[in-house]
Amino acid sequence: MKAMAYYGENDIRFEEHAKPTIIDPTDAVVRITKTTICGTDLGIWKGKNPEIDAGRILGHEGIGIVEEVGLAVKNIKVGDKVIISCVSKCCTCDNCKVQLYSHCRNGGWILGYMINGTQAEFVRTPYADNSLIVLPDDVNEEVALLLSDALPTAHEIGVQYGDVCPGDTVFIAGAGPVGMSALLTAQLYSPSKLIMCDMDENRLKMAKELGATHVVNPASGDVAKQVFDIVGTDGVDVAIEAVGLPATWDMCQDIVKAGGNVSVVGVHGKPVDFKLEKLWIKNLTITTGLVNANTTEMLMKAISTSSVDYTKMLTHHFKFSELEQAYDVFKHASEHNAMKVVLTMD
Amino acid sequence: MKAMAYYGENDIRFEEHAKPTIIDPTDAVVRITKTTICGTDLGIWKGKNPEIDAGRILGHEGIGIVEEVGLAVKNIKVGDKVIISCVSKCCTCDNCKVQLYSHCRNGGWILGYMINGTQAEFVRTPYADNSLIVLPDDVNEEVALLLSDALPTAHEIGVQYGDVCPGDTVFIAGAGPVGMSALLTAQLYSPSKLIMCDMDENRLKMAKELGATHVVNPASGDVAKQVFDIVGTDGVDVAIEAVGLPATWDMCQDIVKAGGNVSVVGVHGKPVDFKLEKLWIKNLTITTGLVNANTTEMLMKAISTSSVDYTKMLTHHFKFSELEQAYDVFKHASEHNAMKVVLTMD
Amino acid sequence: MKAMAYYGENDIRFEEHAKPTIIDPTDAVVRITKTTICGTDLGIWKGKNPEIDAGRILGHEGIGIVEEVGLAVKNIKVGDKVIISCVSKCCTCDNCKVQLYSHCRNGGWILGYMINGTQAEFVRTPYADNSLIVLPDDVNEEVALLLSDALPTAHEIGVQYGDVCPGDTVFIAGAGPVGMSALLTAQLYSPSKLIMCDMDENRLKMAKELGATHVVNPASGDVAKQVFDIVGTDGVDVAIEAVGLPATWDMCQDIVKAGGNVSVVGVHGKPVDFKLEKLWIKNLTITTGLVNANTTEMLMKAISTSSVDYTKMLTHHFKFSELEQAYDVFKHASEHNAMKVVLTMD
Amino acid sequence: MKAMAYYGENDIRFEEHAKPTIIDPTDAVVRITKTTICGTDLGIWKGKNPEIDAGRILGHEGIGIVEEVGLAVKNIKVGDKVIISCVSKCCTCDNCKVQLYSHCRNGGWILGYMINGTQAEFVRTPYADNSLIVLPDDVNEEVALLLSDALPTAHEIGVQYGDVCPGDTVFIAGAGPVGMSALLTAQLYSPSKLIMCDMDENRLKMAKELGATHVVNPASGDVAKQVFDIVGTDGVDVAIEAVGLPATWDMCQDIVKAGGNVSVVGVHGKPVDFKLEKLWIKNLTITTGLVNANTTEMLMKAISTSSVDYTKMLTHHFKFSELEQAYDVFKHASEHNAMKVVLTMD
Repeated sequence: MKAMAYYGENDIRFEEHAKPTIIDPTDAVVRITKTTICGTDLGIWKGKNPEIDAGRILGHEGIGIVEEVGLAVKNIKVGDKVIISCVSKCCTCDNCKVQLYSHCRNGGWILGYMINGTQAEFVRTPYADNSLIVLPDDVNEEVALLLSDALPTAHEIGVQYGDVCPGDTVFIAGAGPVGMSALLTAQLYSPSKLIMCDMDENRLKMAKELGATHVVNPASGDVAKQVFDIVGTDGVDVAIEAVGLPATWDMCQDIVKAGGNVSVVGVHGKPVDFKLEKLWIKNLTITTGLVNANTTEMLMKAISTSSVDYTKMLTHHFKFSELEQAYDVFKHASEHNAMKVVLTMD
Repeated sequence: MKAMAYYGENDIRFEEHAKPTIIDPTDAVVRITKTTICGTDLGIWKGKNPEIDAGRILGHEGIGIVEEVGLAVKNIKVGDKVIISCVSKCCTCDNCKVQLYSHCRNGGWILGYMINGTQAEFVRTPYADNSLIVLPDDVNEEVALLLSDALPTAHEIGVQYGDVCPGDTVFIAGAGPVGMSALLTAQLYSPSKLIMCDMDENRLKMAKELGATHVVNPASGDVAKQVFDIVGTDGVDVAIEAVGLPATWDMCQDIVKAGGNVSVVGVHGKPVDFKLEKLWIKNLTITTGLVNANTTEMLMKAISTSSVDYTKMLTHHFKFSELEQAYDVFKHASEHNAMKVVLTMD
Repeated sequence: MKAMAYYGENDIRFEEHAKPTIIDPTDAVVRITKTTICGTDLGIWKGKNPEIDAGRILGHEGIGIVEEVGLAVKNIKVGDKVIISCVSKCCTCDNCKVQLYSHCRNGGWILGYMINGTQAEFVRTPYADNSLIVLPDDVNEEVALLLSDALPTAHEIGVQYGDVCPGDTVFIAGAGPVGMSALLTAQLYSPSKLIMCDMDENRLKMAKELGATHVVNPASGDVAKQVFDIVGTDGVDVAIEAVGLPATWDMCQDIVKAGGNVSVVGVHGKPVDFKLEKLWIKNLTITTGLVNANTTEMLMKAISTSSVDYTKMLTHHFKFSELEQAYDVFKHASEHNAMKVVLTMD
Repeated sequence: MKAMAYYGENDIRFEEHAKPTIIDPTDAVVRITKTTICGTDLGIWKGKNPEIDAGRILGHEGIGIVEEVGLAVKNIKVGDKVIISCVSKCCTCDNCKVQLYSHCRNGGWILGYMINGTQAEFVRTPYADNSLIVLPDDVNEEVALLLSDALPTAHEIGVQYGDVCPGDTVFIAGAGPVGMSALLTAQLYSPSKLIMCDMDENRLKMAKELGATHVVNPASGDVAKQVFDIVGTDGVDVAIEAVGLPATWDMCQDIVKAGGNVSVVGVHGKPVDFKLEKLWIKNLTITTGLVNANTTEMLMKAISTSSVDYTKMLTHHFKFSELEQAYDVFKHASEHNAMKVVLTMD
């Protein structure tokens, strides 16, 4: 089968691989029908994860049809159409027992990282009963693709950890796929103001179409001042950091109100400065985290009645055989006005 | 001034009364601009509350302009446009200290019951700082009228106590003003299915316009069966009882799923049969209660971005001088397709 | 091997059975070292569960040593000393995914009921990774026996669902093994008053030794009056029903304060009268349920620093070969001042 | 009357002042019977709060007898024995309405800071109904003194924000009055391991007497290593920072486990380094804050059944006329083995 494999910094190859087979009795093998590329995959390509073995097939997002299941698989059947969760959950370790699936001792984020992933014609998925979600026919398949990672990540780590409540004012730093997914899923809780911040005017325009009540561009002046002009100088109830840089962390800590929340969804590569001398007194809650993928079904159901068109997130469509071209577009997302790309099996 | 006063069973009189004055330093006097009639007022008229003194001015809902404030009032100023909350809160008793404002030792629901109410040109409101909410100019005044009682009651006792979450299936028994307000405010949390049950087809039609995904009429057959056809035989996540009769309680206890919630908002006059022999095992949460009115501001803000038109709830409009006629219409709500009536000061 | 099997009303037999073997790859076989008898077992003996197959081995509590594990078992190893949970959890069905393990579609309470149980020399335990808890050497083995069922049931369904908080006043109806376990585990949250109610003075005496601050005997007069004398006429914050009769339900609904909780742990055989005409206004939370056994490890850890001696619950000790005698003592618990009996393998 | 007043850095004076009188109708005047000194008072003395007016009477802790109440005071009566809360709450501003009393727009921490405080024979207390707690005769008066500030601060900002649950492992950095109060109040939730860290061996000894299961001295080697030796290398469930220095913040961020909590109670004067590059993935919750004093009554009730002797916190006793001497002892707390000092009116 064809698959995209990692061989080192700036070296990924779209090449022939052996079709995967069942290894553990809790495994399934899924025939991929649609997959996509994550910012993390770009990071791997750029060499941020030298711990990855050469030849590893990339990708942790996708939907497909179950081809084969192991002997201990109970709920998933051959022929099921499924969403592949980016998180593999054993559901038996100490962390899984407290629903901290992101830190599963036997799984977690391993697909396309520690084991072969979804940018392939077939993928082996461990703990199939817990890591595959049966996809009803009435759910749009492209929205389903967002349920592998982007939507649950933004929802759990940004929106739920940030405790977005009806009437809240919410600031989101970063209009990439995760920030935009936070914008979408925050609306499930009816905030009164949703402020998106980004330097890319096209993305801000898209944010408005997807429900942002206000947009802020750092190029137009001090972000804190712009936000205070919208919500008052007390600041926002919730600030969601969806970039992963010290600058966006700073925005968040500067504009959150007393009693408010800062939820960090961005992947950070450096320490940040935490202004405790000003913030010790502010009764803040600051959270970090990797997705547990425990709200995937909830989101699948909740989205069904949404008045926002989630498919706008899928800006570019390719055949699976055009995967290299899709990588190229996603790598230069800004030039192409790309948000998420869809790869459909030929 | 003119006011509607209670004199006993089937005896309410629209007559002259003295204008109220400040009694306690925490009082305000408000000039009413709009008021409405509650089902509770009808109940009083019918003689359900013989404990009420003759001559008591009715009404616990309204918006108006602050005329005068007591010496200890800090946040409310003369000239403020305000929502009058149906619950007066001292904020200093043991119950208020745990946010159980409905059971305030010095207040609670007293307006139009233990003290003179809002169906008058002026009303004295105790604990003005806690019981009046300043109304911004951009909030629709008719929606604001619903914030005195109907919306917070349905939201707090039905939706919040019932723990409506994104993706949930929700059943509401009773499409009166409170049931309909539960339908509206449940949508703030993005349930996937919202099933309204009533015997009045006009109200069911209105429910669909206000966001019900399904409607059920007991006249069309067994309610449980109809609900199971929609959500499956496990039942619903949340059942909201908004009528106050044993029959609607029974519907709720019969259709709630294991791990689900039944929230009782209806005013009950009789004990009900609680099928513990079937339900002890079901990990249910059942709640009751009177509104605390602690989500009034939250709702005021959250509603601002709603895609549903809340003003459809206000079906009939009268001048205040036509209050007797308004009572007559509201008493025969079904014939008139009436939901809530608005009385505007002449 | 020897085991106690059910053959119908008033017909249980201590007899030879075949040693169990692994059936599913997620199974384990455990050699029992200690087991006990539950009130439910007595109920089965009395004929309350005619749905049980003849020849079924009874018992859902026990500790032992793992003899053999299936191919898909990851965390449990041969030789581990384990607590056997009364609830078998697949951890993959829809109910398990929301931690409603009591309603596991593939398990739940099945041991000693739908499949052979722990009153035997060996038992097969399904979903071993999720249903066995490794027992550290520093945990008392008799306390561990209480962790199979009594303690988590009382803690989860009584104390946690009842939301016992520091400083609360708590009433417990019924000083049997579950009520007494509620008394013990409520103390983990530091209530200020713990009132135990029972008709058996010996049990009330024991309750005082185990931490009750007050005891109430219905024989001494109206229970509500006795409770109000202790906590005031507002009533208690939390009432835990641990008997399963209309009379004890009534006590609870009569003495809970506005804003309080009634948690029903008792197994009820009849409907009860729910005084909604008085309680609709009281902002109550009433809960029911079967144990999820998701706090077993938490309890095992928390108990370690307790100043109360949990082993006092284990009043009678027998060899496993004396199981019939133990049943007889437990059946006449009151005469024997028996709370829980321990059966130790010969 | 005699009072301790601030005049600038290193300049506090025990001198004659006018007895306070009622200013607002919600005020009370309290005759102090016992007061104490807080670390914050030492900070003021050292010049950390130059914003304070010369002549300001210090102190925000104390118990006393109500001498006089304003016209709008409803629940507090002349002659009541009361605890004076360090936080004055209007209960009507937007922050108070969401129980963020620490950020009360009209109060908050103002006693002994923005208005005259409790290190005097009499004090005027604003919002008496909300800021005084009636003290029952059966509560020890010295423990009551801890309820003005130290215990609720540690409980709310350390223990509750840190979400200490039964069975948890808890690390506390700093065995001063607040850290020690966190040690005491954490026990209300039955953690399994309570590790106190300090450089003062006397304080560590006292921590063990007050319930610490383990103590750690940074002088004995790397703190993280010492903690991991106790709880394993995953780290602790909850780390409570009760010092206010970058070094103790670092300890906390280094030893908290995935899914754990860091609660910052310390008053910080400098920014800290937040290792987001390691912690973004760990699903942490980090909190900060000033006490809301909304658990004072809860603590008063919960402590009543504690097996730990809270009065051990009160290490030194003085007459009020010896206040200067008490300041001197408290300033050199370590030499004197002082934790909290009690000043009793002559």
